[in-house]
Amino acid sequence: MSEINSIGVVTPKTAHFNEALTLKSGDILPEFDLIYETYGELNADKSNAVLICHALSGTHHVAGKHSSEDKHPGWWDNLIGPGKPLDTNKFFVIGLNNLGGCHGSSGPSSINQATGKPYGATFPIVTVEDWVNSQAMLADYLGVKQFAAVVGGSLGGMQALQWSIAYPERIQHALVIASSPNLTAQNMGFNEVARQAIMTDPEFYDGNYYEHNAIPRRGLRIARMLGHITYLSDDAMGEKFGRRIKDQIKYSFDVEFEVESYLRYQADKFADSFDANSYIRMTRALDYYDPALDFDGDLTKALAHVKAKFLVLSFTSDWRFSPERSKEIVKALLDNERTVSYAEVTAAHGHDAFLMEDAHYHAILRSYFNKIDFSKGEG
Amino acid sequence: MSEINSIGVVTPKTAHFNEALTLKSGDILPEFDLIYETYGELNADKSNAVLICHALSGTHHVAGKHSSEDKHPGWWDNLIGPGKPLDTNKFFVIGLNNLGGCHGSSGPSSINQATGKPYGATFPIVTVEDWVNSQAMLADYLGVKQFAAVVGGSLGGMQALQWSIAYPERIQHALVIASSPNLTAQNMGFNEVARQAIMTDPEFYDGNYYEHNAIPRRGLRIARMLGHITYLSDDAMGEKFGRRIKDQIKYSFDVEFEVESYLRYQADKFADSFDANSYIRMTRALDYYDPALDFDGDLTKALAHVKAKFLVLSFTSDWRFSPERSKEIVKALLDNERTVSYAEVTAAHGHDAFLMEDAHYHAILRSYFNKIDFSKGEG
Repeated sequence: MSEINSIGVVTPKTAHFNEALTLKSGDILPEFDLIYETYGELNADKSNAVLICHALSGTHHVAGKHSSEDKHPGWWDNLIGPGKPLDTNKFFVIGLNNLGGCHGSSGPSSINQATGKPYGATFPIVTVEDWVNSQAMLADYLGVKQFAAVVGGSLGGMQALQWSIAYPERIQHALVIASSPNLTAQNMGFNEVARQAIMTDPEFYDGNYYEHNAIPRRGLRIARMLGHITYLSDDAMGEKFGRRIKDQIKYSFDVEFEVESYLRYQADKFADSFDANSYIRMTRALDYYDPALDFDGDLTKALAHVKAKFLVLSFTSDWRFSPERSKEIVKALLDNERTVSYAEVTAAHGHDAFLMEDAHYHAILRSYFNKIDFSKGEG
Repeated sequence: MSEINSIGVVTPKTAHFNEALTLKSGDILPEFDLIYETYGELNADKSNAVLICHALSGTHHVAGKHSSEDKHPGWWDNLIGPGKPLDTNKFFVIGLNNLGGCHGSSGPSSINQATGKPYGATFPIVTVEDWVNSQAMLADYLGVKQFAAVVGGSLGGMQALQWSIAYPERIQHALVIASSPNLTAQNMGFNEVARQAIMTDPEFYDGNYYEHNAIPRRGLRIARMLGHITYLSDDAMGEKFGRRIKDQIKYSFDVEFEVESYLRYQADKFADSFDANSYIRMTRALDYYDPALDFDGDLTKALAHVKAKFLVLSFTSDWRFSPERSKEIVKALLDNERTVSYAEVTAAHGHDAFLMEDAHYHAILRSYFNKIDFSKGEG
């Protein structure tokens, strides 16, 4: 089905910004690049744009393929395309790689024009607020004054929420999926384990591993294995692997069980493809995000000036971004008498469910996107 | 309260076994030591002995102190002592360090008499079944033909269960607390992350770090941090740390939140005190244990010859050894028409609850131990 409605071959573009961006930390990025892709056509009054915000390890490559032989379509290709729930016959969809990433936007592995060397450890820590500000600059660049919708899952959902707070006039709908108004201590703990694994890897060289021709692969492997386990549910792992033995028990520390084989494979693949400095920055952005912090922890007050309509959606088996956390957002919106739809989807796959092609989940998104009527200047 | 009923100063003893122990793997330990402590007095007919089996990082030092100035009593001191739920005025309690450990029983850091060097990587992988066999040898050594009870939490509970299977005549009561008849794929996944962190640490030297005067501290730190998070519940971590900021946000990778400070402290402490080769072996023992494996996964058949009476106890917020897993044991015992009491204790602390002084939990244990009547040769 995905094949029939595929967007086909897409080509990333890069926008260069010579304007300085002042970050939440006080640091300044004097200039930066954002790599992005677009799907569908921007209509005449530029009212049909939808921004997709990515999560921890996502990229600008959200849908379609990079060549006709490409075996790996974009990470949300099951959702976005002609006739798909987010229909590119109707909407103009934008995906970008966030600042600090490692897929083409300015980040720690990019060359710092001032020194001619990779930024490495000198690349600043970028927050969800900073991402949203940089996305607003991209919107200006593309001529989009107001998004029909900003959509994201997990860390991407935090960006959709932040859009509604920072730019209430520029967003008609926020779709906040498998997300949370901030991380719990448990989630921050998992992030800290991942970061410590990376940062104590001797090949990390305090973040300047590029100039040592090194990669902190050990740390990246541990971070990825841990991520994989916690983004799945206990039940999903039970179904996928159970206690299946790989060949036969050898009483060794080699692979004995299939789950170990899977985790090692995923770990190796990730360590070869993701930048460690980007990873630790993405987890920090997650840790820091907490829009209620400036309002004595009162999320209702933090959302007082929001104008967007919301779809908040959670998955029953997601224990890292549980339905309870989504309901906190719903409650704060209702306290402010905002328009919000909430769906709790029964799904076995844990946090990863937001990336999967679940019929009920996709039906909700299709229905929600179908009802968005940008032709009337709604909102 | 603990202080008033303390056992006081205790001194570990070591039993040396010259008999060879054939392990489940087929490897043979030609001779070995077991370090143990005892609390209370063995009665004349040697019917009041209770064996305590430890979990992943436990030791033989279960109760009392090693000197009057000792600030750290044994790990289950809140449970065991004169007048405590497991009353040493009535019972003779034995704690030991399991084979493969690092606190005095033969393990990877022990000197191999055949070579004069630490065993290191050559120390075999020891299973739950092997531990129980070695514990039976210790029981023989102490003149205990039948235990009034074998008690354990977590991995210790697996040993209590295994005692009932391997030595049905030698155990009157099995107390299986916060345990499981085997690990889920999720639990095996967490173990694999911990092992990979240790084994890919360059200071691990394939397990022979002793001769390099090295310690794989980085890996041990990661293993411990991960353990700490998963042995607590999300709620317990929320209560203990929440999102509290340590000093003020610095936008850095240093400690920003209290939860990070706590995890790093625990990590450092553990890396200085626990042997990496022991740790990876303990996790493997957890992975392998699965008494139903030889019975096509049918736990009821695996427990067909059990004679002990059981107390199975779980904690509501324990997500690594959930109440559902305890109920599998209860069901298999009931299928076999065995005597089993089951308690599900409402507790916020997750898996760690089994070590804590919870009033309801301890009342159940007190009541259960009070009812054990070894004077009649019960069982």
